[in-house]
Amino acid sequence: MALRTLSAKSAAALDQELMSAGAFSIDQLMELAGLSVSQAVFKLQPLNQGKRILVACGPGNNGGDGLVAARHLFHYGYQPTIYYPKQSKNELYQRLTKQLKDLKVPFTEDFPSALKETDHIVDAIFGFSFSGDVREPFPKVIEALRDTKIPVLAVDAPSSWNIEDGPPGSGPGKGFMPEALISLTAPKPLVKWFEGRHFLGGRFLTPEMAEKYNLELPKYQDLDQIVEVNIEGGKL
Amino acid sequence: MALRTLSAKSAAALDQELMSAGAFSIDQLMELAGLSVSQAVFKLQPLNQGKRILVACGPGNNGGDGLVAARHLFHYGYQPTIYYPKQSKNELYQRLTKQLKDLKVPFTEDFPSALKETDHIVDAIFGFSFSGDVREPFPKVIEALRDTKIPVLAVDAPSSWNIEDGPPGSGPGKGFMPEALISLTAPKPLVKWFEGRHFLGGRFLTPEMAEKYNLELPKYQDLDQIVEVNIEGGKL
Repeated sequence: MALRTLSAKSAAALDQELMSAGAFSIDQLMELAGLSVSQAVFKLQPLNQGKRILVACGPGNNGGDGLVAARHLFHYGYQPTIYYPKQSKNELYQRLTKQLKDLKVPFTEDFPSALKETDHIVDAIFGFSFSGDVREPFPKVIEALRDTKIPVLAVDAPSSWNIEDGPPGSGPGKGFMPEALISLTAPKPLVKWFEGRHFLGGRFLTPEMAEKYNLELPKYQDLDQIVEVNIEGGKL
Repeated sequence: MALRTLSAKSAAALDQELMSAGAFSIDQLMELAGLSVSQAVFKLQPLNQGKRILVACGPGNNGGDGLVAARHLFHYGYQPTIYYPKQSKNELYQRLTKQLKDLKVPFTEDFPSALKETDHIVDAIFGFSFSGDVREPFPKVIEALRDTKIPVLAVDAPSSWNIEDGPPGSGPGKGFMPEALISLTAPKPLVKWFEGRHFLGGRFLTPEMAEKYNLELPKYQDLDQIVEVNIEGGKL
């Protein structure tokens, strides 16, 4: 049985429902999403195999998840560096940024240099609301992510991939296949084309919401906020 | 060396600073606090030794931490029941309550009966802002917590204890000694009189804030949001 997925439109509707009828605040959801991302990094990149994590953040919610993840990574003992070229004026993102600056987490504007000094990369550039073309300054960043040999964990989607149709046939993301992907709340249709390790986060969904959106609640272990699943939908 | 503690006044100042200069929202802090509490329950009460958790919530932030903890406990596989007799009209607590109701977590108004059908209790009635007398309907609840043989985990303070001076010499809380205590962000002076297992939560404090408030950042393991410490300040 294939893994049940959520279209971009349904994912947006589910998020909206969590925050309206579900009574979650975006602060809460982003904290839990970022925590999940940080736990996936912890599994993929053990602390004793290189602590430097470059977190590339886009202008929207995906970038916000990256900012939260970076904070938790700092507290686990990692050395995160943030690339966040299009900083939103949104108050939440500004607060998440301030929380990192208070930890003296460095922000860089020079992605190519940062790439030479990291052990792992989090791609939190574009999430499930991405469509259309990759805007500046991200084309070069995505090319670099495509070409690097350093492992990349993509948050919700490999940036520049089409949410429904997967890898782009042209443009900077053509041929971009991250080592790992963490799907937040539910996998998007693009997972069908994904060939790396796949994690699922979102241990807050109610059974009712899962049923309504035709999702299966994965079996998390112990206190884990993530679970590794294969693309066929089985737990590893 | 004794564990460094934070007076009620300093704890309030630190909380305020986290939310002003520190740029944390109360949603974020409460989510992380409640997550810590849920992890302490997971350590104290393994799932295969009884899943029923009675969470007694007071009207303020301590109760809010209990509501968040109960939600996470549900997702871990526990069966929480909430006693929350003085429900605040505060929007945040109402949302946390709704999140539990959406999971069909039961709310009870009958504490004595609930006590007969639980394996573990979380005392989230009063926290570090408590002082003075225990108001209705809590005196009987605290007497029941004092007299029960079911293990109790107190959040930040055994309810009715004086934050600076510890166990009360009279009243319903006289002789109340929970099995365990989780101190959020930092232990309060009352820990000097506490004789049970002691956990610390708050893996978000910056080194600067810790220095300013003369606290030691504990050494958390792996992804843990809590650490068990002895009252002398050493890690167990």
